[in-house]
Amino acid sequence: MPTDADAAPGFDVGLLSPVSAGRDAVVSDAAYAAALVRAEVALAQVLGSLGVAPRAPIEAFLAAAKPFEVDVAQLALDAVADGNPVIPLVQRLRALVADVPDAGAWVHHGVTSQDIVDTAMSLLARDAIKQASRDLDRVVRALADLAERHRDTPAAARTLTQHAVPTTVGARFADWLLQVADARDELAAAEPPLQLGGAGGTLASHVEEFGHDVAVRIVAAYAQRLGLHAAEAPWHTRRTAVTRLGDALARVTDALGRIALDVATLSRTEIGELAEGSTGGSSAMPQKQNPARSVLIRSAALRAPGLAATLHVAAANAVDERPDGAWHAEWPALRELLRIVLGSAGLGAGLVEGLVVHQDAVARNLAAGGGTIMAERLMLVLAPVIGKERVQRIVVEANQGGSITELLAAQPELAGRDLAAVLDPRGYLGIAGDIVDRAVARGRS
Amino acid sequence: MPTDADAAPGFDVGLLSPVSAGRDAVVSDAAYAAALVRAEVALAQVLGSLGVAPRAPIEAFLAAAKPFEVDVAQLALDAVADGNPVIPLVQRLRALVADVPDAGAWVHHGVTSQDIVDTAMSLLARDAIKQASRDLDRVVRALADLAERHRDTPAAARTLTQHAVPTTVGARFADWLLQVADARDELAAAEPPLQLGGAGGTLASHVEEFGHDVAVRIVAAYAQRLGLHAAEAPWHTRRTAVTRLGDALARVTDALGRIALDVATLSRTEIGELAEGSTGGSSAMPQKQNPARSVLIRSAALRAPGLAATLHVAAANAVDERPDGAWHAEWPALRELLRIVLGSAGLGAGLVEGLVVHQDAVARNLAAGGGTIMAERLMLVLAPVIGKERVQRIVVEANQGGSITELLAAQPELAGRDLAAVLDPRGYLGIAGDIVDRAVARGRS
Amino acid sequence: MPTDADAAPGFDVGLLSPVSAGRDAVVSDAAYAAALVRAEVALAQVLGSLGVAPRAPIEAFLAAAKPFEVDVAQLALDAVADGNPVIPLVQRLRALVADVPDAGAWVHHGVTSQDIVDTAMSLLARDAIKQASRDLDRVVRALADLAERHRDTPAAARTLTQHAVPTTVGARFADWLLQVADARDELAAAEPPLQLGGAGGTLASHVEEFGHDVAVRIVAAYAQRLGLHAAEAPWHTRRTAVTRLGDALARVTDALGRIALDVATLSRTEIGELAEGSTGGSSAMPQKQNPARSVLIRSAALRAPGLAATLHVAAANAVDERPDGAWHAEWPALRELLRIVLGSAGLGAGLVEGLVVHQDAVARNLAAGGGTIMAERLMLVLAPVIGKERVQRIVVEANQGGSITELLAAQPELAGRDLAAVLDPRGYLGIAGDIVDRAVARGRS
Amino acid sequence: MPTDADAAPGFDVGLLSPVSAGRDAVVSDAAYAAALVRAEVALAQVLGSLGVAPRAPIEAFLAAAKPFEVDVAQLALDAVADGNPVIPLVQRLRALVADVPDAGAWVHHGVTSQDIVDTAMSLLARDAIKQASRDLDRVVRALADLAERHRDTPAAARTLTQHAVPTTVGARFADWLLQVADARDELAAAEPPLQLGGAGGTLASHVEEFGHDVAVRIVAAYAQRLGLHAAEAPWHTRRTAVTRLGDALARVTDALGRIALDVATLSRTEIGELAEGSTGGSSAMPQKQNPARSVLIRSAALRAPGLAATLHVAAANAVDERPDGAWHAEWPALRELLRIVLGSAGLGAGLVEGLVVHQDAVARNLAAGGGTIMAERLMLVLAPVIGKERVQRIVVEANQGGSITELLAAQPELAGRDLAAVLDPRGYLGIAGDIVDRAVARGRS
Repeated sequence: MPTDADAAPGFDVGLLSPVSAGRDAVVSDAAYAAALVRAEVALAQVLGSLGVAPRAPIEAFLAAAKPFEVDVAQLALDAVADGNPVIPLVQRLRALVADVPDAGAWVHHGVTSQDIVDTAMSLLARDAIKQASRDLDRVVRALADLAERHRDTPAAARTLTQHAVPTTVGARFADWLLQVADARDELAAAEPPLQLGGAGGTLASHVEEFGHDVAVRIVAAYAQRLGLHAAEAPWHTRRTAVTRLGDALARVTDALGRIALDVATLSRTEIGELAEGSTGGSSAMPQKQNPARSVLIRSAALRAPGLAATLHVAAANAVDERPDGAWHAEWPALRELLRIVLGSAGLGAGLVEGLVVHQDAVARNLAAGGGTIMAERLMLVLAPVIGKERVQRIVVEANQGGSITELLAAQPELAGRDLAAVLDPRGYLGIAGDIVDRAVARGRS
Repeated sequence: MPTDADAAPGFDVGLLSPVSAGRDAVVSDAAYAAALVRAEVALAQVLGSLGVAPRAPIEAFLAAAKPFEVDVAQLALDAVADGNPVIPLVQRLRALVADVPDAGAWVHHGVTSQDIVDTAMSLLARDAIKQASRDLDRVVRALADLAERHRDTPAAARTLTQHAVPTTVGARFADWLLQVADARDELAAAEPPLQLGGAGGTLASHVEEFGHDVAVRIVAAYAQRLGLHAAEAPWHTRRTAVTRLGDALARVTDALGRIALDVATLSRTEIGELAEGSTGGSSAMPQKQNPARSVLIRSAALRAPGLAATLHVAAANAVDERPDGAWHAEWPALRELLRIVLGSAGLGAGLVEGLVVHQDAVARNLAAGGGTIMAERLMLVLAPVIGKERVQRIVVEANQGGSITELLAAQPELAGRDLAAVLDPRGYLGIAGDIVDRAVARGRS
Repeated sequence: MPTDADAAPGFDVGLLSPVSAGRDAVVSDAAYAAALVRAEVALAQVLGSLGVAPRAPIEAFLAAAKPFEVDVAQLALDAVADGNPVIPLVQRLRALVADVPDAGAWVHHGVTSQDIVDTAMSLLARDAIKQASRDLDRVVRALADLAERHRDTPAAARTLTQHAVPTTVGARFADWLLQVADARDELAAAEPPLQLGGAGGTLASHVEEFGHDVAVRIVAAYAQRLGLHAAEAPWHTRRTAVTRLGDALARVTDALGRIALDVATLSRTEIGELAEGSTGGSSAMPQKQNPARSVLIRSAALRAPGLAATLHVAAANAVDERPDGAWHAEWPALRELLRIVLGSAGLGAGLVEGLVVHQDAVARNLAAGGGTIMAERLMLVLAPVIGKERVQRIVVEANQGGSITELLAAQPELAGRDLAAVLDPRGYLGIAGDIVDRAVARGRS
Repeated sequence: MPTDADAAPGFDVGLLSPVSAGRDAVVSDAAYAAALVRAEVALAQVLGSLGVAPRAPIEAFLAAAKPFEVDVAQLALDAVADGNPVIPLVQRLRALVADVPDAGAWVHHGVTSQDIVDTAMSLLARDAIKQASRDLDRVVRALADLAERHRDTPAAARTLTQHAVPTTVGARFADWLLQVADARDELAAAEPPLQLGGAGGTLASHVEEFGHDVAVRIVAAYAQRLGLHAAEAPWHTRRTAVTRLGDALARVTDALGRIALDVATLSRTEIGELAEGSTGGSSAMPQKQNPARSVLIRSAALRAPGLAATLHVAAANAVDERPDGAWHAEWPALRELLRIVLGSAGLGAGLVEGLVVHQDAVARNLAAGGGTIMAERLMLVLAPVIGKERVQRIVVEANQGGSITELLAAQPELAGRDLAAVLDPRGYLGIAGDIVDRAVARGRS
């Protein structure tokens, strides 16, 4: 057993990851330790309830485990020697019933460390998904409101940083909504299963002791008691459930991160179309209204891909019947993904619920090019009349400061045309309203 | 327009990526260029068939486009100036009908470069998924055969590189099968949709010219003609379809990469339980039988996570209505993922179909510890008789070279026991057979 | 030997990676194949020049190899069976001298595939570094000019997207310069070494045949002939040289990518402080001036981290004396990094050399907040006079549209103060000029 | 200010990352909070010692700060609103001297949050590098001893998992040593600098108040007081120092991770050449001796690349004069890299110092192929006598179970040859001894 660890435990309460600070209690080390205990307790309950274990030791263990609180920091230190916390945890749990004959043997009975660790991670993931889903629901509902309210507000669509054509504020919100709703639904579908396979993934110990059918029933009962779904087969080295969850988590931060970048961009001093309802401040620069939530959400979105990639690297290295490091690499990567999704979703809900649309700035920016943003429509409508080249020339001149209205009015062929109508962005919004309606319906379903 | 490119084009035929060499024609630059052309041609066909475009120019274009072959290398060079190949391609396509009045205007009519690029990538992805799925089907079928054939062959299960308990050769194959089958199914479900949104994602141009209802019908007809599914709404900056595909591709390489690592490990000179049917050689070392396919598949599995992560980074940076680089970052990353999945799946099929199981080595390794691999069972069965400590002591002694049979036989309490039966791995396989049966059923469904 | 490859070779001429199209010939598959040949030829030359090989076969081989051109596409296909191209290449090279007694045996004499592959990659890297360095020198020189020209042009510094305090246009360019210069210098220092170790990294074959001292001399002569530096020891599985290069390449794309993002941001329609000298266009939207180079450079910067990470994953998996896939994973990742650095550096030089500073927009944006960007200075200078709270209140009022000059003038305590001087950004630029001078000096050294 | 955070703080004491548990106190949140305080205190000390601040408030602050201990968990929660912990920390620090006139104003005087955060991270990095370097020195020294002890012990070199040619146990250790020594040296060279730039990176506030020359002197004095080196210029968005450190950290985990994988592989039940001195156990399977340290070190090596990649993504997104999320993304990624390097280095020292070489297994494996591992030499020495084809045939026959000695002895041309000498691996070790000597010299320098 390695004993070369120092005594002092490091710790992390989120000071370096403000995106998740205060929102990640369900996946803390304490929550994880509790989930490990819960997985052991539930196993004992199942063995008891199926009648395969004698009543007395099980009841003694359950009674002793109820008030038990593990010293998480010490458990972390003790986990180093064997590489996982289950061995030292089981020692503590068995010590609780040291004076009850045979009771120790019914703790962690017939299972392997990985069964407990994976199951505990699934419990954490389940709880985190539940909390994040609530916040994502808030995001979706708030976006439905925003999209509806601004359904017909024309705004500049920007491609490659440049004004392109008009769109609507509502269509942008609708597009955000669809992405978040998809991410939320995929996350819910990615809840990982129970793990129960025994030392080699064959349940040999339970089959040996209780027979084939009871061993199979233990799996079902265990899943039911913990509220997890059972897997097709033990998945000690078939890590699809982990990467699927990791990828779904990354898709959540993609969706929220893209919103955050749009908000930060549209909050730029020069653009000013959006503002976070409450903003971060600067004591030295009182004029500043920092899009603090967007900044933190974006920081999370930049981090998630590397963490999700680690889960794939681990999955690809899941050699043998339990790999030599790849499994251990999953834990902190997956937990960190859960943390930043919890944080991003919570901050995202606050961000979207408080989002302010500065309609004057939206209108001002849209008009800033003097109508050149209508160039595509002008090409479409006027090129048949005055030729493509002349339209292009007019737009280029207008782009350099000329008045597009005057330039067009100077074309004799266009006399009598309602040029104001042609130049009105509200008349060139395509299916933007449809997109809003579709998204709003989805957001309220 | 940037003109600072040199004349000489670099090229890549797979010399540095043998995993995909010879298997990736469906996603080559030529295939991509053809898909771009196809997307433009199909658009013209749709506009013609819906009667919104005049017959003559459409027919002229379709006739001219039929024999058209683009100079792919030159197109690549010309794509630098604007950052994508559609603008120079459309110039070429319009030049084909330069002498037909109005025909040029009906090429790329009312759409944007991103519509064509994304749609072409979806076509490539669709074709690649089809080819890869066929190979993954082969993998699954071959694994079903292997699992069935070795359903009851006991083998050492290894955890953290050490012999743990018995499992079966078949259960290992079954586990591989389940992972590949899941990956295959998720890949098929991740086929990306048609893209059609126009300059700002609102279809404003088509709505302007043809009216709302026709614009909507164009989308449906376009999807149908290309054999792609339509999206809920244009997805210019809602890049879920791309990350979903990328993640599904990574899950394929995870599944195959893990198999490859198992094969490479079990092919080690000292282990020798598996061998690739045909192996790579070394002219200088004729004794070597390199697991060449496994090595290449594994190399792909180590590369995929970084590429899939890039797609998430891109999705999180999809600002505005077309982003300033994030979209462009997707193309080579997604294509490379498609390439290595095509290669891995093809090599994987060959690997699994030709896989040789050296049953003698399997048996020899299983027996090598002199029965210590049965320790868990001994603890279970014999500890109640002679106590946990004595069993442990016996196993440790046996581990150091003692004969477990003799050590056990020396215990008076065990006199008369059928120790050979207790030590027989075939009696301690748990649900290994069930796992095989389940996987085989799935593999043949 | 795997024979399950299809016949049709895929290829890539950069159509999906416009950032590098036309700039990456030095690392093309043709260049790589030529480098493989060159490595084999140089080995023969060394063996000949040291007199350890007989003259006739060496001369026959050198004569035959001179006009030899390998069919790169076919070589790529043939590389699949063994997993690397050297075995089929050596067959071809030996076939060139099939009729010269013993000549074949002097081709690839006493070396291993990895010696040739790694050495060829080092040659490619060396050539790519040379080309990229030239372009990075251009970037640095152009930035020195820009920084000097705009040394004292005040501009808004933006933090978290919001105007913060003044800086100078020149200081921004200077900061870019320092980062690019550092990246360029680190890249030059990361040129990878020769590889020569023989089958097991011990040079046993050469030592056996020629003796210890000659074997050692072969290494030095080989390095000298190829213009590479020799390594401390063969590095078949000590892959520091590869990750060091990969990281240095990523640092180049970081530096250029950050410039590109600044340019794209400052080119936004609403900001307009910078413009690429020649811009990408849109046929349908003639008003658009897309920052096409920035977009492509940024796309590369988003891709590089995933590729560099792959090299670290490979290095960490470099097991045994040649690993089972990790080595093969390096090739396409490293080459792609070289490609995008070649492309980014070339485009970056064009970008910076042609960069247009719109001084009117710089001044307009700086003044847009009506002086609120001077808030930090007002706090510093005026708080001692009228109190911190009043200054803050004035800034907040000004931020909401009030005139800061009028609000300040209304404070009786400030009567007689030269408020215009206090509000002049040119008086609050700190060491911005020093930073420019330092960077310009570095840029011209 | 966002107020939507829950009250309950999550925390992490390493339970999910056993590799670093107990070794990462120097980079804990408490250490970080202390470093933030230290950065503020040192600034006040500098302002006091240079005589630019009045004595009384500085002394009051220093006295009050000495016993101050921040509530780290609460600080983490308070950091959410503005996105970084400096604003709430400065409020607390100023509150310490609320009753001393002007003292508050001399806290955090003229600097920006990023100055304090970056400087605190540099302090943490410096301390972590120091601790890790000590452990890496231990690794290097222990490897020098091991390499020397096993300098001439022949062993099987394995390429692509197969026995290739002989090498020595010592040469393998020497190669590990060189990689670790390089990584250690690069890590020491990557110590990040002080950050001091003020709100916009121009030091405008200090220059305004104290004049140009004093402002410059403050930087030098601040660096000296903290024991950090000064940067060429403020580096708020020129993040080379961060990626350079991150990459150097990844190179450490690459080096240790590759050793760990070699140890795990050579510890396999079937190979058994190496064993960790003390091993992880399994209560249910007493025969198991898990390479627990190797497993944890390897898990860290699989995680580092994704974290280092995040730092590059952040660097490439460092827009403006302080970016909208990229900076914040660095903190947890860099800290986690520091944690796992601290852990890996500590475990690695224990691993290497306790490493057991089972010479019998080394010899047994080397001999297991019956001499076929000498095939390269046989080709070299005997092909000139009996022809290449016959040597190959003999090796292949031997590979299938024949005795190579008998097969060779049956060749009439070889009569009288000392075949035992030809087949002795000790005679075919090339420069393995040189490599050891070179590495040992380096390890002891």
